[in-house]
Amino acid sequence: MRAARVLETVGCDAFVASDPFTVAWLTGFAADETWGPNPFAVAPLAVIRPDASVVAIVSEDEAPALAGADCDVLAYEGFTMAPLDPLARRRAALASLDLQGRVGVEDLAPAVPGVTSIRADAHALRLLRAVKDAGEIERICAAIRLCDIGQAAARDALRAGVSELEAWGVVQTAMEVAAGERLSLLCDFVAGERTGEVGGPPGSRAVREGDIAIVDLVPRLAGYCGDSCSTIAIGEVSAAIRSAHARCRDALDRGLAALAPGMRAGDLDVLVRDGLDYPHHTGHGVGTSAHEEPRIVPDGTTVLEPGMIVALEPGTYPGPWGMRVERLALVTESGCEVLSKHDVSL
Amino acid sequence: MRAARVLETVGCDAFVASDPFTVAWLTGFAADETWGPNPFAVAPLAVIRPDASVVAIVSEDEAPALAGADCDVLAYEGFTMAPLDPLARRRAALASLDLQGRVGVEDLAPAVPGVTSIRADAHALRLLRAVKDAGEIERICAAIRLCDIGQAAARDALRAGVSELEAWGVVQTAMEVAAGERLSLLCDFVAGERTGEVGGPPGSRAVREGDIAIVDLVPRLAGYCGDSCSTIAIGEVSAAIRSAHARCRDALDRGLAALAPGMRAGDLDVLVRDGLDYPHHTGHGVGTSAHEEPRIVPDGTTVLEPGMIVALEPGTYPGPWGMRVERLALVTESGCEVLSKHDVSL
Repeated sequence: MRAARVLETVGCDAFVASDPFTVAWLTGFAADETWGPNPFAVAPLAVIRPDASVVAIVSEDEAPALAGADCDVLAYEGFTMAPLDPLARRRAALASLDLQGRVGVEDLAPAVPGVTSIRADAHALRLLRAVKDAGEIERICAAIRLCDIGQAAARDALRAGVSELEAWGVVQTAMEVAAGERLSLLCDFVAGERTGEVGGPPGSRAVREGDIAIVDLVPRLAGYCGDSCSTIAIGEVSAAIRSAHARCRDALDRGLAALAPGMRAGDLDVLVRDGLDYPHHTGHGVGTSAHEEPRIVPDGTTVLEPGMIVALEPGTYPGPWGMRVERLALVTESGCEVLSKHDVSL
Repeated sequence: MRAARVLETVGCDAFVASDPFTVAWLTGFAADETWGPNPFAVAPLAVIRPDASVVAIVSEDEAPALAGADCDVLAYEGFTMAPLDPLARRRAALASLDLQGRVGVEDLAPAVPGVTSIRADAHALRLLRAVKDAGEIERICAAIRLCDIGQAAARDALRAGVSELEAWGVVQTAMEVAAGERLSLLCDFVAGERTGEVGGPPGSRAVREGDIAIVDLVPRLAGYCGDSCSTIAIGEVSAAIRSAHARCRDALDRGLAALAPGMRAGDLDVLVRDGLDYPHHTGHGVGTSAHEEPRIVPDGTTVLEPGMIVALEPGTYPGPWGMRVERLALVTESGCEVLSKHDVSL
């Protein structure tokens, strides 16, 4: 179904996907991203054949992750004691499919000799990915449940005297134990003055009484991302912080109350941003990537549709502190359903 | 120096590196690999100009990581509320360098219009990377110190009743706290019967009395990898396990005693593998990648030279258990210096 829409959108007989988010969307496979490039594999490809069936091209080491997937698997030699050349092996696997005619390609796809290459419009493909089907929504909800677990762990772990990295270790472990596996995890996890810089990774600084911490957690599970943010007070904080936090929560509630099909992304951005000043988007979709259409940005032209998933994350960063709250919602026929369950109180 | 040798080896006026390991070697920059592909950036490139100066092409968000690096930085727009197209931005940045003449390219490098492209021999480039300079050795030693810390944490954390993932959380946190930052971390971290399968990531299984665990830790710090492995007994283990472990340690000691310049990789493989049966290499180099030349494999033709770093990791996997021990050593003028300090007892 997805594959047929790609062939139609690009206007081609066959298609070679190389964008990691497109590949994950077509096959369910996301390469392990906890440790950097793999010397025994190169990035996976997904090929759509003229009959709209999908073939994943991955290394043999990665093939087990595709057991049960709704696609064929063409595996090239992975771990080996022989000379290393996974790129040549991937190229040979692609050539063995003997694609003919007009072949759509994403920008990073290897050349397919002897065919007419049709450059795919990346934005058009991203719009195809924006509306989620039931299986995708289920996967995203599973990743959101990990966010909820991580957010609760962060609220427990962030105590005066504990370093950001020590608290992060508690959060990361809680999420990985809950998932039953290691996770690709993007985060902002900062306390104190660095919150004024919107975010960043955890560091060695010890959390202090009176700090606030930005905890933005983005795990990927089975190829799909969750997202979540809270701002957590460590002990007593100033009236200015409490007041700013109330405005952020109001903005989030206002956005979730307004979120409905037919709305233009740019209008939602204006509505949520009103009265706050933040140097980032108001929100974005999540799926195989952590930031995708519908992008809720100034002048955003994407029109919301049922099945889209939207993260809203208003904030304010006046310095020497900053804050943000975020929840994910599914656009329904009549409005939206909030999927995040984590605590967004201060 | 490295850059000039690349131009000479490939026989070109300028060079575009796209292999992540080559890019890290030329610039010191390794993209953040703790959370998967970044929607606001594509893979970094390194360009060698005809005067052998190096330009890193990265997103603006990544540019701060290159402060102080011995290369120029050409940054394209990263995080943005505008339409996403980091690939086009990277392409424009590359075009702005106006390369001329014979331009060497790695396989995944984008095409440079209007020049004569010279395909680089990937193996020849890997051999260039195999001999480390003093700065690289220092970085690898820093990553090995993290291995030592992680190995000690694993020996403490692996107790009957604790799940692999819970113990892994302790190890990961200890290494990240010691590094002062989140880390790209490859590992084998399995106890019980999965040790018979050579390794794998930690899972939900609880460690049991009488288990052995394979703990293979590969952190990347400042672009360079460490590596280490120990096999750890949880309580009392069988005489067969103790005997097998003694043979693995003997093989490791034999390899380290023999390791010297002029030795052929294949001969070292035979010497260490003698009397053991393992379905993997005897060892490998480490550097910007976790597995590189000199690869200590059957029939390996690489001849060891001073400045190479070699991981030796003999094991045995008779089932229903398996084991492996690993240390890293620097090839010196007269032999080798063992760099790993972790405990390799059972």
